[in-house]
Amino acid sequence: MAAHTLLLIRHSESTWNQENRFCGWFDADLSETGAEEAARGDRALSGAGYQFDICYTSMLKRAIRTLWAVLDGIDQMWLPVVRTWRLNERHYGALTGLNKAETAAKHGEQQVKIWSRSFNIPPPAMESDHNFYPIISKDRRYTDLLEDQLPSCKSLKDTIAPALPFWEEEIVPQIKDGKRPLIAAHGNSLRGIVKHLEGMSEDTIMELNLPTGIPIVYELDKNLKLVKPMQFLGDEEIVQTAMAAQGKAKK
Amino acid sequence: MAAHTLLLIRHSESTWNQENRFCGWFDADLSETGAEEAARGDRALSGAGYQFDICYTSMLKRAIRTLWAVLDGIDQMWLPVVRTWRLNERHYGALTGLNKAETAAKHGEQQVKIWSRSFNIPPPAMESDHNFYPIISKDRRYTDLLEDQLPSCKSLKDTIAPALPFWEEEIVPQIKDGKRPLIAAHGNSLRGIVKHLEGMSEDTIMELNLPTGIPIVYELDKNLKLVKPMQFLGDEEIVQTAMAAQGKAKK
Repeated sequence: MAAHTLLLIRHSESTWNQENRFCGWFDADLSETGAEEAARGDRALSGAGYQFDICYTSMLKRAIRTLWAVLDGIDQMWLPVVRTWRLNERHYGALTGLNKAETAAKHGEQQVKIWSRSFNIPPPAMESDHNFYPIISKDRRYTDLLEDQLPSCKSLKDTIAPALPFWEEEIVPQIKDGKRPLIAAHGNSLRGIVKHLEGMSEDTIMELNLPTGIPIVYELDKNLKLVKPMQFLGDEEIVQTAMAAQGKAKK
Repeated sequence: MAAHTLLLIRHSESTWNQENRFCGWFDADLSETGAEEAARGDRALSGAGYQFDICYTSMLKRAIRTLWAVLDGIDQMWLPVVRTWRLNERHYGALTGLNKAETAAKHGEQQVKIWSRSFNIPPPAMESDHNFYPIISKDRRYTDLLEDQLPSCKSLKDTIAPALPFWEEEIVPQIKDGKRPLIAAHGNSLRGIVKHLEGMSEDTIMELNLPTGIPIVYELDKNLKLVKPMQFLGDEEIVQTAMAAQGKAKK
């Protein structure tokens, strides 16, 4: 029997998703479609009567705005919200800002796939002469990060690494204390939590594309083991369409 | 010379302000006009290049939404936000939900003025048979409040009382640590902070009506004493109009 419920939501479409550019730690906003998707997520939660006690999100506005839309829609704007870089998206290093199609044309589909999908291999680092270096690496929101915490690029493994201690040290104690968390974050930081909860292999997690803007529910027993597979909340047609779309190469 | 800057913003117009009803701890949302006012506040801040490190607000959505509009407008959505009931509006007890004109007709202008403006005298308590008792006193957002913290009514003195320890214990240490706080709250909880900072008498603070949706700046020396009087940010005409409007009986 489920003792705890955990709710995840991957941010909905950003302007850079729309333009098919590597985004990572660049602070792109939601697109108009993304804002609509976020509102759809809150309707699903609201209809199901979900109540939360604490929220977690990243330092990036596409996740924060998705969370705001949900909190507004479920009339729980008063909930405490913890923002952390540990739930940020994977940092795409030198690829940040590049149109994915252009990158593929330049480096080859295969190389892009390796960078973007392999578990261990990071893309090339973002050097200090990169266009986006000043607005990412010098952004004051990351002032408190230690030198080895501020990335210049990240493999999926590197993205999961800082998310897991946050899960264990911040989120798990809250769940064990009976709190119901809502986590609004990114495809790759959420993959870290999903991989851990499901005990997935590296290959399996790389193939998994979480749908955007759709609340994902996990039911957990008192030892925080899964009671059943992840469930998606919302209109079946929307969920199916989103799942199918996530199966494509875009991420 | 100013060592620190403190920024306050009183939430902009709510639907209940518009209807002239005693609102207090009822969670009324911003009106359409209020949402526009909030956006005006962020333009003033954005134009002046203000940067903050931490935000404080109440548990009520009219303050939270005002804060969100500002954070969005100044592109600082990633800032940590602390929500506390200690910055909530004054609780109007049995008057909650009543149209102010009706209350005046029933109890007399003078009595309403005593309830709403005197420093020490609270309005009549909200009893358990009051229409709004279940949705305010039983709201789960206040579950952690001790019995003597959950009010059934409040004088202005009672409103200030819980705000001041929060100011001293939570906000002051942050300021002394060099952090720049942004506080989005309510007419009466902000009066507590203003009274304290300005060393105002009870009579003076009762006569002071802070403008809504307009950023208020205090410059403080290293001992947190005022360097100069409060300043309003924004177009001079807007500030003058808002100040004049605040001089009326509405609050």
